[in-house]
Amino acid sequence: MTEHTKPLILITNDDGVNAKGINELISALQDIGELLVIAPDCARSGMSSAITASVPLRIQKLHEKKDLTIYSCSGTPVDCVKLGVNEISCRKPDLVVSGINHGSNAAVSVIYSGTLGATIEGCIFGIPSMGISLTDHSPDADFSQAVKYGRMVAAKTLKEGLPPGICLNLNVPNIPDVQGLKVSKQTKGYWKKEFEVGKDPSGKTVYWLTGEFHNEEPENKDTDEWALDHGYASLVPVQIDMTAYHAMESLKGWETQL
Amino acid sequence: MTEHTKPLILITNDDGVNAKGINELISALQDIGELLVIAPDCARSGMSSAITASVPLRIQKLHEKKDLTIYSCSGTPVDCVKLGVNEISCRKPDLVVSGINHGSNAAVSVIYSGTLGATIEGCIFGIPSMGISLTDHSPDADFSQAVKYGRMVAAKTLKEGLPPGICLNLNVPNIPDVQGLKVSKQTKGYWKKEFEVGKDPSGKTVYWLTGEFHNEEPENKDTDEWALDHGYASLVPVQIDMTAYHAMESLKGWETQL
Repeated sequence: MTEHTKPLILITNDDGVNAKGINELISALQDIGELLVIAPDCARSGMSSAITASVPLRIQKLHEKKDLTIYSCSGTPVDCVKLGVNEISCRKPDLVVSGINHGSNAAVSVIYSGTLGATIEGCIFGIPSMGISLTDHSPDADFSQAVKYGRMVAAKTLKEGLPPGICLNLNVPNIPDVQGLKVSKQTKGYWKKEFEVGKDPSGKTVYWLTGEFHNEEPENKDTDEWALDHGYASLVPVQIDMTAYHAMESLKGWETQL
Repeated sequence: MTEHTKPLILITNDDGVNAKGINELISALQDIGELLVIAPDCARSGMSSAITASVPLRIQKLHEKKDLTIYSCSGTPVDCVKLGVNEISCRKPDLVVSGINHGSNAAVSVIYSGTLGATIEGCIFGIPSMGISLTDHSPDADFSQAVKYGRMVAAKTLKEGLPPGICLNLNVPNIPDVQGLKVSKQTKGYWKKEFEVGKDPSGKTVYWLTGEFHNEEPENKDTDEWALDHGYASLVPVQIDMTAYHAMESLKGWETQL
């Protein structure tokens, strides 16, 4: 028997190491793997795939017991994955799980999300990776359904792996009885009414980011928003190669036309 | 004759409003459009598509003359585009141009780059959008070739538009005679040896993000890294829909197997 019989699961998030979501995730995965947790020391939502290059990063070990080690990190979710894989772990993780996020990361939020930024980073390293989000922002949200689906998808991913360059974006609706899992595509849409304009105490204008999501294809049953609206957990395979291959041919003409 | 005969070009970057690259870009585009510049008040590289939600944003008008208005913004490159489109501009921009970045944004850097984050944001708004980067990090780099190619691609994009959901990632090598434009795909690869471990003055361990790019397909002539290595400017069409459609079918089985 080798020293490491359990798979190594690297866990991170963007709500910070003290958030309820990541701690529910840790509890849910403890029996299926050795867990290495490295998560931001405070909330770093909306960080996308941001990296920290201008200041050095610091980490702090918060917990170390058999099969569960927890670090906090001064950086972004992606920094956490980079530090976990490069500096902290003595072996390559078998799985990266990011979350459970307080709030949906469906549709275009995959682009802004730190939860998904960390997931994509795991995928860049060639590690099967997944993000889990619950469509409820409250700090004390009920994560039971997200835990249930997250655990099932994590176990399946560990067993079957994922194709290279592809990671998973799992979103779970905040309802007591989720109908099942629905493999979906990223919903087309954008955020609108994005700013609340206010004044600071000295009377200067400030802009608070807010807004609402505009769904451009609300009737499309293949989308993640449709799945969530109809009581399903949505599972979107996300690719890290952003090349629009189908657009290359028509652009080729530009090579000689400029 | 309408009031606006010139197309409106929204310009931003991630090196900050005072960087040489964005000022070269402003000069290059001044005769083909009315320019609205809103760029970070200091360098915000590696910010990807990060947004600022926890603190309010502030903007400052630095310059206003016929056809050229310049603002600085306390936020990320994506915040700049959001503020420009939502709050500052009285009409929808006809083109978003982000850059010219000091440093390459080829290969997987498209994911970490604030320059491309802003470009992708323009695309989410349905505006033809492009990022321009020069493979030279120095503050006083020679931008003449990047300006030449950037201007040509901007003019072409204004004239022809881009398919919905697709934006452009233009990288220009830092050589005196660029061979031409090559439509390319995002090179497969990842960053390795990413941290330099050091001590702060009090003796605590700190981690500086650094590293080198590992190209997984150095012989592939279709890649942006190949184009740049061989003296071409690379043009990658980037899509904002990250769904891996080809992986959906095999994942469908998971819907019933969990």
